[in-house]
Amino acid sequence: MSYEQLLSHTRETAILGSVLNVLEWDERTYMPPAGGEYRAEQSAYLAGLIHQRRTAPQVGQWLAELAESPLAADPQSDSGCVIRQLAKQFAKKQKLPQSLVEELTRTGSIAQHAWEAARKADDFKSFEPHLAKMIELKRAEAAAYGFDATPYDPLLDDFEPGETTANVTRVLGALRDQLTPVVQAIAESKRRAPSDILQRTYPRDAQAKFGQVAAAAIGFDFSAGRLDTTAHPFCAGVGPRDVRLTTRYNEQQFEGGLFSILHEAGHGIYDQGLPAEHYGLPTGEAISLGIHESQSRMWENLVGRSRAFWDYFYPQTQAAFPTALGDVSLDDWYFAINESKPSLIRTESDEATYNLHVIVRFELEQALLTGDLPVAELPAAWNAKYRQYLGIEPPSAANGVLQDVHWSAGLFGYFPTYALGNLYAAQFFEQAQRDLGDLNAQFRRGEFMPLREWLRMHIHSVGQRYSAAELVQRVTGKPLSHDALVRHLRTKFGALYGF
Amino acid sequence: MSYEQLLSHTRETAILGSVLNVLEWDERTYMPPAGGEYRAEQSAYLAGLIHQRRTAPQVGQWLAELAESPLAADPQSDSGCVIRQLAKQFAKKQKLPQSLVEELTRTGSIAQHAWEAARKADDFKSFEPHLAKMIELKRAEAAAYGFDATPYDPLLDDFEPGETTANVTRVLGALRDQLTPVVQAIAESKRRAPSDILQRTYPRDAQAKFGQVAAAAIGFDFSAGRLDTTAHPFCAGVGPRDVRLTTRYNEQQFEGGLFSILHEAGHGIYDQGLPAEHYGLPTGEAISLGIHESQSRMWENLVGRSRAFWDYFYPQTQAAFPTALGDVSLDDWYFAINESKPSLIRTESDEATYNLHVIVRFELEQALLTGDLPVAELPAAWNAKYRQYLGIEPPSAANGVLQDVHWSAGLFGYFPTYALGNLYAAQFFEQAQRDLGDLNAQFRRGEFMPLREWLRMHIHSVGQRYSAAELVQRVTGKPLSHDALVRHLRTKFGALYGF
Repeated sequence: MSYEQLLSHTRETAILGSVLNVLEWDERTYMPPAGGEYRAEQSAYLAGLIHQRRTAPQVGQWLAELAESPLAADPQSDSGCVIRQLAKQFAKKQKLPQSLVEELTRTGSIAQHAWEAARKADDFKSFEPHLAKMIELKRAEAAAYGFDATPYDPLLDDFEPGETTANVTRVLGALRDQLTPVVQAIAESKRRAPSDILQRTYPRDAQAKFGQVAAAAIGFDFSAGRLDTTAHPFCAGVGPRDVRLTTRYNEQQFEGGLFSILHEAGHGIYDQGLPAEHYGLPTGEAISLGIHESQSRMWENLVGRSRAFWDYFYPQTQAAFPTALGDVSLDDWYFAINESKPSLIRTESDEATYNLHVIVRFELEQALLTGDLPVAELPAAWNAKYRQYLGIEPPSAANGVLQDVHWSAGLFGYFPTYALGNLYAAQFFEQAQRDLGDLNAQFRRGEFMPLREWLRMHIHSVGQRYSAAELVQRVTGKPLSHDALVRHLRTKFGALYGF
Repeated sequence: MSYEQLLSHTRETAILGSVLNVLEWDERTYMPPAGGEYRAEQSAYLAGLIHQRRTAPQVGQWLAELAESPLAADPQSDSGCVIRQLAKQFAKKQKLPQSLVEELTRTGSIAQHAWEAARKADDFKSFEPHLAKMIELKRAEAAAYGFDATPYDPLLDDFEPGETTANVTRVLGALRDQLTPVVQAIAESKRRAPSDILQRTYPRDAQAKFGQVAAAAIGFDFSAGRLDTTAHPFCAGVGPRDVRLTTRYNEQQFEGGLFSILHEAGHGIYDQGLPAEHYGLPTGEAISLGIHESQSRMWENLVGRSRAFWDYFYPQTQAAFPTALGDVSLDDWYFAINESKPSLIRTESDEATYNLHVIVRFELEQALLTGDLPVAELPAAWNAKYRQYLGIEPPSAANGVLQDVHWSAGLFGYFPTYALGNLYAAQFFEQAQRDLGDLNAQFRRGEFMPLREWLRMHIHSVGQRYSAAELVQRVTGKPLSHDALVRHLRTKFGALYGF
């Protein structure tokens, strides 16, 4: 009985969560400007209800009763997975004093405004005290959770459950060491991508139509989803069969809108592939941010920026944009969308250099948290790492240390999931190649369903039955490593830049 | 303290209600088809929470404590209005046994499906048992509420609080008696409106743009609202400063889309004019369906179908639709959009005949409820009334007695609010003319704000401080009567049809 009650309670809480997602989607797509004030009240009220329900003492009682039950015996069974995951989340949430939760929310809100102003004014000093306060609170949060090795561990666990700082340091360290020479070789190459063709005029309606066709082709189901326009692209699952993608269009920057669509569609395909009958339960939810990102990155980069993808799609792309692309060869197009060069802004960086941007942040946020790096010295440390890994130095804080919102919002331990996503993606993709044969040959024929079905079977359908590390081991037979991604980048960019 | 607690409880319930409105708006505008199944779960769960909160025993205790408090002494004060209205709603809801509520919901759902199938098959017989069951339940509902004169009274009160069957019968009876000769005179007139010009091609984008301009001109605030497309036009208030209109476009039927926009904008202007700081409380809510309809009908008909409105708007209309309207005179345009003739379908009928459609239903649904009219005899009674009031007879049940969803959904007492809306509108409009001077002269100059501000001050801003009957008396100095509407229709259609 406790189990049925726990399930029903959890499903009802998930309904409130899904409604909150509808509100957020609406806020970012169609809500009229004056609606924002009351929307904040609606969202805060629902978030409060959800928090109350998740931390209700009754939940703790059910979980305690179930801990020794046969239902919990097999950790990969439906009930075993549900009980284990809910117990873990409940125990962690219980450790946080209410006063700290409120202080984090308040400080995050103030710090985000301070960050926006500081970035605009290119003035790190004005942001410094807010960041210092936030770091102090995150230390307190980590202490409340408890940790063995480093306070970074329990924070990382919020986004990549079960992962350790030591392991991520090992993998990203190896990636950094192998990637810096590749990035250097690209920078030193005499070859130049004809990237100016991407700045020609690509009419907005044609972009939207083409993006929709491409997302549908790779397997995003538009009968259970949509594509809309926002300032910042995102993917929102608002129900088991209702997943909403957004992108932005710039007529002089076709690439941005299109690859955002493929990226968000990758997230959306994961959400659509989760077992609908388990919606709202751990058996029907994504494993981690890193695994989620592996799906978006796979479709965006390993598929969407592959030569094979464009062997298939380029003729219809030329037909859709005859003025811009009529005189452009497939070779030039392929090189243009794969231009790589060291740059300052993470979100605008390319497939090869992106990971180094992330590693800079991963290393710095650990040092901030442990106190090894005083906040006042962060800008200098930031610039030094950019020089060291990317060979360039930000001319201003706005283009450097102030470019991301994450730290002001208290998101410490979030950044590495971006790079982990790329690593998982490459390792899964190699395995898919082994299982499915020549994927590129399939892409050249416009066949993307074998890969989607493979992902659905091996990754999407399992919910949270395994941790990310267990999943990678199960699916690829190996623990997570930098190998597959480095192999992919070296081969791809070696061919393009001739090294 | 009870009062503060009651306010806070009521405001939180209103948040859930507003969220439910967002879900419904989304369902009818943008939700992908496969999302419907879970959306039903989301909506049902929220509706359940709202019902629980509205009927919570705690609410009864607060209200009991407040009944004798000084806060309740002045019925037009904020607190007096809130306590009076909430106490009335709570007492009424308490009278309904839970089993009857559930039976009504279940029967309504089944009966609506049966109605859809019956209308499609043009087969009243298959719908008859469902309607009979529903009528039986509505009798039980009326009995649970209790009544003096007729079981129709407590049902009517759900939509038009405080109104009585006797009074509505008196007013609509007089309207019917004065209107039938007008409708007859129109039918006998030799003049014919050039309505074929409305069936020319009016490009959809230009319709949407023009509709938006017109809605903004009459005072709908698009910074706190939107206009979207749906199968059936509606207006949804999803927050104090977030009101959403919808319409539908048919390129060969410009009139339908445009007047739906003006109609829904009228509802929306009321919602936007309710005092935002009282949102979710009786002091910030609309008085009744009839008063709400008076606002939509005023902007749609008394303003939007007036000659003065088109004196101002017609030049830009011609510019927006040069192909369709380049050779059409303002006189022809004005006559075309005001064509009147007896017709079968309520929702497609014109300003003059519309009220007779409503009166047919008002008379029949009372007789069904009291048992004076057996359900089996309804089709014949329907046809007889159409012959008597409109001079035509439906050739089929689908075009007759089966055309509206209301009865299958248990909405008895709803229909008269449509005609009451027209009556209130005409009576308010005459008063506004007295207070503001020559409204038509203002419209001819494109000045609609004086009327909107007058409505805001006298009607929108009062919330539920007065009943509809009290409001009409206060604002116009007279009780509700058929006079103003009949005067308006006789003058307008007399000029058009020459009688």
